[in-house]
Amino acid sequence: MARVIVDVMLKPEILDAQGQAIARALPRLGFSGVSAVRQGKRFEVELDGPADEAALSDIRKMAETLLANTVIEDYRVTVEE
Amino acid sequence: MARVIVDVMLKPEILDAQGQAIARALPRLGFSGVSAVRQGKRFEVELDGPADEAALSDIRKMAETLLANTVIEDYRVTVEE
Repeated sequence: MARVIVDVMLKPEILDAQGQAIARALPRLGFSGVSAVRQGKRFEVELDGPADEAALSDIRKMAETLLANTVIEDYRVTVEE
Repeated sequence: MARVIVDVMLKPEILDAQGQAIARALPRLGFSGVSAVRQGKRFEVELDGPADEAALSDIRKMAETLLANTVIEDYRVTVEE
């Protein structure tokens, strides 16, 4: 059994209103020194088998068709050790 | 400038309905070999200065008070190289 992480973030050129709202709220709440915040999604996918090339290729397909909207989002697949 | 990642996931004992919905949809959509999916949030926090101990302590406070609901969620802070 392996665990694969899929991180999905808005593309840098897309306005991230949630992240901006957090970044703007921080000084009011007593936190300084933060220049920007971006919010995205994290998926932890547990595989029945090992995270071999076939499984990762499936997960990339899954990310592209289901987990991310590739018009506005980038995704990254990493295997958790 | 440093980038710190805050991952927020539901605690393992809390039912993750979104993740379950994804895991159940996968076989219908032609993906096999996935035993479970959990969905959480990922925050990318850009710091003005370096990610030193003081900054990380601030970010942990931020995660506990703003980004995560620690009754039902766990968070993890990592510095992106």
